[in-house]
Parts: sequence; C-alpha cells; structure tokens
Amino acid sequence: MELLKEYNPYLEYKDGELYMEGVSLKELAQEYGTPLYVYSASYIRDRIREYRKAFPEALVCYAVKANFNPHIIQIAKEEGAGADIVSGGELHACLLAGMDPKKIVYAGVGKTIQELEYALREDILMFNVESLMELDVLNELAGRLGRKARVAIRVNPDVDPKTHPYISTGMKKSKFGVDIKTAKEVYEYARSLKNIEVVGIHCHIGSQILDISPYIEAVQKVVELYEYLENKGFNIQYLDVGGGLGIKYKPEQAAPHPSDLAQAIGPILKGVRARLVLEPGRSIVGNAGLLITQVQFLKDKGHKHFIIVDAGMNDLVRPAMYEAYHHIVPVVYKDTGYLKADVVGPICETGDFLALDREIQRVERGDYLAVLSAGAYGFAMSSQYNARPRACEVLVEKGQVRVIRERESYEDLFEKARV
Amino acid sequence: MELLKEYNPYLEYKDGELYMEGVSLKELAQEYGTPLYVYSASYIRDRIREYRKAFPEALVCYAVKANFNPHIIQIAKEEGAGADIVSGGELHACLLAGMDPKKIVYAGVGKTIQELEYALREDILMFNVESLMELDVLNELAGRLGRKARVAIRVNPDVDPKTHPYISTGMKKSKFGVDIKTAKEVYEYARSLKNIEVVGIHCHIGSQILDISPYIEAVQKVVELYEYLENKGFNIQYLDVGGGLGIKYKPEQAAPHPSDLAQAIGPILKGVRARLVLEPGRSIVGNAGLLITQVQFLKDKGHKHFIIVDAGMNDLVRPAMYEAYHHIVPVVYKDTGYLKADVVGPICETGDFLALDREIQRVERGDYLAVLSAGAYGFAMSSQYNARPRACEVLVEKGQVRVIRERESYEDLFEKARV
Repeated sequence: MELLKEYNPYLEYKDGELYMEGVSLKELAQEYGTPLYVYSASYIRDRIREYRKAFPEALVCYAVKANFNPHIIQIAKEEGAGADIVSGGELHACLLAGMDPKKIVYAGVGKTIQELEYALREDILMFNVESLMELDVLNELAGRLGRKARVAIRVNPDVDPKTHPYISTGMKKSKFGVDIKTAKEVYEYARSLKNIEVVGIHCHIGSQILDISPYIEAVQKVVELYEYLENKGFNIQYLDVGGGLGIKYKPEQAAPHPSDLAQAIGPILKGVRARLVLEPGRSIVGNAGLLITQVQFLKDKGHKHFIIVDAGMNDLVRPAMYEAYHHIVPVVYKDTGYLKADVVGPICETGDFLALDREIQRVERGDYLAVLSAGAYGFAMSSQYNARPRACEVLVEKGQVRVIRERESYEDLFEKARV
Repeated sequence: MELLKEYNPYLEYKDGELYMEGVSLKELAQEYGTPLYVYSASYIRDRIREYRKAFPEALVCYAVKANFNPHIIQIAKEEGAGADIVSGGELHACLLAGMDPKKIVYAGVGKTIQELEYALREDILMFNVESLMELDVLNELAGRLGRKARVAIRVNPDVDPKTHPYISTGMKKSKFGVDIKTAKEVYEYARSLKNIEVVGIHCHIGSQILDISPYIEAVQKVVELYEYLENKGFNIQYLDVGGGLGIKYKPEQAAPHPSDLAQAIGPILKGVRARLVLEPGRSIVGNAGLLITQVQFLKDKGHKHFIIVDAGMNDLVRPAMYEAYHHIVPVVYKDTGYLKADVVGPICETGDFLALDREIQRVERGDYLAVLSAGAYGFAMSSQYNARPRACEVLVEKGQVRVIRERESYEDLFEKARV
C-alpha cells in the first residue's frame, strides 16, 4: 500500500477498493466502461508546482507529446506552464486549451510548410530548428509572411542518457539536431538570415532519464556554447534544456525530483543570463494516469497462466513497443493469494501483452485491474488496431469527475471511410 | 524495374514516373497530399482469385485485421470471399461492406459480452473459441438470446512458423487457443453444452509465413484430430486453417503462391469431408498498397545522411515495432545516383524510422517516395501519436481513383475531447 503512494500519492485503498482523489475507480469503470484512462489533476498540478519551485526563474514547458489531451494542457496552463510541441496538431491542442503562444516552443525534425506557417502566424515563442535546410525554409516563409522567426538551434550534445535506444535523442548518430561541434557555423549562418532572430540554444537528450549525470554533461556543453556565442555578440535569451526526467515504472525504481535536477545543473547555470526553459512531459503526467481494464477470461495452460483483459496493445503500446514494465494492481483488493501469469490483451498478436510472468493477485472474470504509470505515452500512442474504438479518458480532481475524451463508437471508426 | 513487378504487377515506371493501374502516383500525391496510402483493387482481386482457384472448394475468409477499411472488405466480398474477424469493430466493418454474416468466422482470445452478443445476433458462420471459459460464456449468452452458437475450437498445433515472435501464434506458450493434446476434452465439454453446436476445428500458426512446411505439420495434426472427432460422432463441417502466407518485403524474398500451399496440404486433406476455411490477409492486401511520403528535409551529419519524410511511425509502425523492412522507391526516377541514408519520420523518437542505412536514390526536398508492401498492417495500426492527423487512403482500379478514407483534420483529433 505504501508502494502505491510512491507512484501517486492520490491513490489509496479504502476498505480494499482503489480510489484516486477520493473517487472509486470501480465505480468509474462501471459507469464509463473499460478500457478507461483515469488521470489525477492534482497530481499534475503538484508536479508542475515542484518544477516551478525548483526553477523559479525558468519557463516550464509541458511536453505535449506525452499526452495531448487539451484538458491536460489546460491544467498545465492554469499552473503557469508553457508548452513544448512537436507538430501542428499539438499547437492546435494548445490553442484549444487557451495556452499563450508566447509560451510555446516548437521542436521536431520534419516540420512541414503548413506547420511552420501555422506557428509563425500564431507567433510562438521559439522554433527549435533541427537542420540548415529548416533554417532556410523558415527564413523564406517568415519573409513571405512579413514576420521574424525566433529560433534556437537544437544542438546535439552527444551524451548517452542511458535510456531505451528508441527514446535516446541526443546521440551523435541520431536524426535530431546539429552536431554541437558544427553548431557555431550554423549559428553564424542563422544570424545571416534576414527573417531569423536567433534567441536560444536547444538541446534534448532523451526521455525517461533516471540518472541525472547526463544532464550535467549536456548542460555543461550548452553553457560552453552559450558563452562562445555571447562573446560573438549573439543575444541568447533562452537555454532550452530538453529531455525529461524519468518516472517510477518498476517498484524498485526511484525517480529523480525536480529539485535534484536544480541542484545538479544550478551551479553550472550560475552566471548565465539567459532564461532556462525545461520540457518535462512524462514526469508531469506519467504517474498521474492509469488504465483500468477488465478481466475477460482466465486461461490455464498447464504451467502457464493467462489473464486476458480488455485493454490491448492498441490502448497501451509501450509493453509491445519498448518492452516497458507497467505495474498492475487490483482495483478491488482480495485476500486470494498470488499467481504468476501473463496479462494479455484481446489483440491477435503474441506481442499484445501488458505484463509477462508477473506475480499478480488471483482474479476472476469481471474483476478490474489498474495499469499504473499510464498517463504518458498511453492514450497518446493509442490506435484502432483490430478495429477497436479507442478508450475514454476521465479526469478526477478532489472527488469530481470529468470526461475529457469520450469513448469512440463503431461508427466513429468508419466516419472517414463511409461506404 | 523488373523487381517492382515482383512486388505488384500493377506498378510500373512510365517515362520515369511511377504509376499504379495507370494512375500517376505523383499526381495522386499532389492532389490528396501526403502521407497517402494507395491500394490497387485489381491486385486484391487477383490474389483472392488465386486462392479461390487453388482451393476451389474452400471458403476463403479475408483476414480483416490486415486492413479493416470497409471498401477493401467490399472488394473481398465482390470476389466471393468471406471474412475472418477478431472484434466487434471488424464485424461492423464487414456489415458496412455488405458481407454475408454466414461467411464470417470470429477468432480472438478476449471477446467481450457485447461482441459475442453482436456476432450471435448477426448469426455469423462460426466462433473460433479460444478457452473453456469462453465456451461457458458463449453458451450462456446464446441460451439467453434463444440461439445456437456454431463453434470451432481453436487448437494450438505447437509448430514454429519461423516468423517474428510477435506474430507467431501457434506455439504452446502463446495465449491463443487450447493445447491440441487437451483439445479432445474441450470438444467433449463443448458437445455437452446445450446452446453450442460444434462445427469445426480452427488453428492458426502465425503471420508472414514464407516457408510452407509448418503448415504441413499443423494440418497433419488438425486432420488427426478431425479423424478422432469424426470417430467420436462429431460432425465437423469446417477445418479452418489460419495463419497467413508471407509476402515479399525484401528484394531477395520470394513469397509462396496459394497453389504451393494447395500442393503441400492438398494430399493431407484428401478424404476429409469437412470444408476448408482459409484466412489470408497480408497476402491479399500487403503488396496491393504503398505509402507515399514527401521528403521534408535532408540532413548531413558527416558520414551519416538522413532523409526526413512526412510519414512517421504513427502512419506505419512496422519498422519501429517489428524492425520490419519496407522497400522504398522514388515516385519520380532520376538519374542522380544513390546514397546510403536513414529514411526517418517527423516523430520525436529515434525509433521513428522507415529505413536504416538504406541505399536509396538521391532525392531533394519535395520529392516523393513510395514505401512498398504497406497495404497490410499499415493504416490498420496507425495512430495519432504526436497529434498527427491520420493519412488519407485511396483505391485505384483501371485508371479510376476513389478516396476510401478521408484525411483527418486537426479538428478531428479533438472531436471527442472538446474543451
């Protein structure tokens, strides 16, 4: 039970039933059906406040890619955060949420003309530019629109974030950014462009970072570049240090706190006049959310047990995609002992699992399970694979419940594909 | 150029421009935008006809999971095929396509009450039942609805299909089916249930099977079980042999032809009175389709080249998910030589790639590339990750073009999540 609080302090068992912010998850499941994503608004607020407290001068930009539901972005906005976006769709979500464009930074290796135009017209704070060619395109577009594009160059600090290779972004061989060694030339080139205003330095080392030391290395390199550029007469106003702190997925994991990060990189940033920009996503919303799923069938294959649930890889792809661990707890605690089982979904692939060989409370058909740490890269990566309508998302706050995304129907699946 | 025909005979370069069934892919891309899925209807018809010719007595059920667009299912229907479904959503798609429920078989380990009811009311041909518990639930439901459920038991032949572990489905340790050794008891149990009519045997060994020998082994085991059951007085009317033939993804791969399969399993099925059911999906639609994407930026990182395109892992997840190879060809052929490059998408993950270290024609910003073999498990697995609207799907047939799924808009992304 204490373990549960380490994931999310707003989770607790009352008389053996799991509650989030005073709301019974069993009742939510019964009312809204399963699979069901549930998020705690207070948890999200707390995390943003922690970041803002640890970095009082910084602009904390919520990394929308973790969860692009406009209602989640709205909470970030209410707590004074900005937004880190990677697409026109995410910009749209931010605007729906009422986010001030002047608090939006936009990264991404493949921004289209339409997306760049959209962001220029909305006059966002800063484009994190990833290549020379993007600089040219942006310069030309800005000229055509009679605007100046504020840019940071995304530099690649070439540090190993010690996370999953798919979400390591700051290594030399990656598609992102420009090599920090050639960055100086890129900055000079950017300065030569008429409709570009160079205002920042951006770096991003990866996601789900549990060990802070790669940050120290990255920030050191960025500060060296900053000092070089300042000496060359650039006016660098923003140091955007991307890459998100990791969260607790496994029971034995301990996630770093924003204040740990502040303690580690604070001294390096002393004397830097530019404003720090941070881009936390997973650490804001990851453990705010869980996915409730219902046990459909149990299956015994000799020494192998299967718990077949109604959430599949289309709902939560992380186990299949990254071999990710998600802790699973019963929504109603029973004193029935434990069993080692695979928790698998209904999709017709062997890769469709939520947990393999997991010690888990013995359950029956109809029981509900809560898959923890599902607030980030959960719904955001969900699909309709196997023609499965996507899940409903609800937000709870201090006993109140709000549907923030309705469940899809069969009709919705074919809305764009009418016969 | 000859290689192209091996993927899809309806593809050809005319004056250096790629055409499908007489339609210019460049013009399609310009008219409908990118990323764009394009399918050849004639290719789909040909494949189904090949199956029907190789197995004139069999019921060929198109495996809808490969591509659940109702317009694709409609072509299958027009060619006399039935459907193999795995969800209520797929049943819905089949009904939209006008498919006769009496030609629909339904497999899947996690069928919900709502799904079972839906399929019972529509009176589909056969439920491929995956567990004892499912039998009980189906029996009870059928009773309540005053119906009889026709079932096959999905038996697990425990053969190794020599394909990707995620799409191997017939191994003993997998979640699917019942162990063939215990199947006899399951059949007796099924016979004892009042509202269940045992009509078939189902097996499924996996997907993308290039070597036919595992089929021989599986069918032998199924026929042994068939003979045993016939001796016990069962009336087995259908032998449903699932698992799909592989397709050519890599230039050096050769895919088996339905007639190869007929030749291999035909002799084993001699003397079997039950009707054969086949479940091809990928081999019907995989090489019917391709994904057109536009080059956004080129990036040179010393010895490493990147071609950044506008299709991401949200559009085609197979490379990221299965490390799948997809052949990529230019939509407009140019005599500009070749380059070794990573072809990557716009998503903010290092896992977002379409090809790694691939020898590919030198391209420029704005050029179009065609990602081949994308008709199966392409759009079907696509998501809105990074808040990206999903692609448009068009069908071409003998020079005619039909949009079979409209491109999503930013508004569509938040239709269910209004603020």
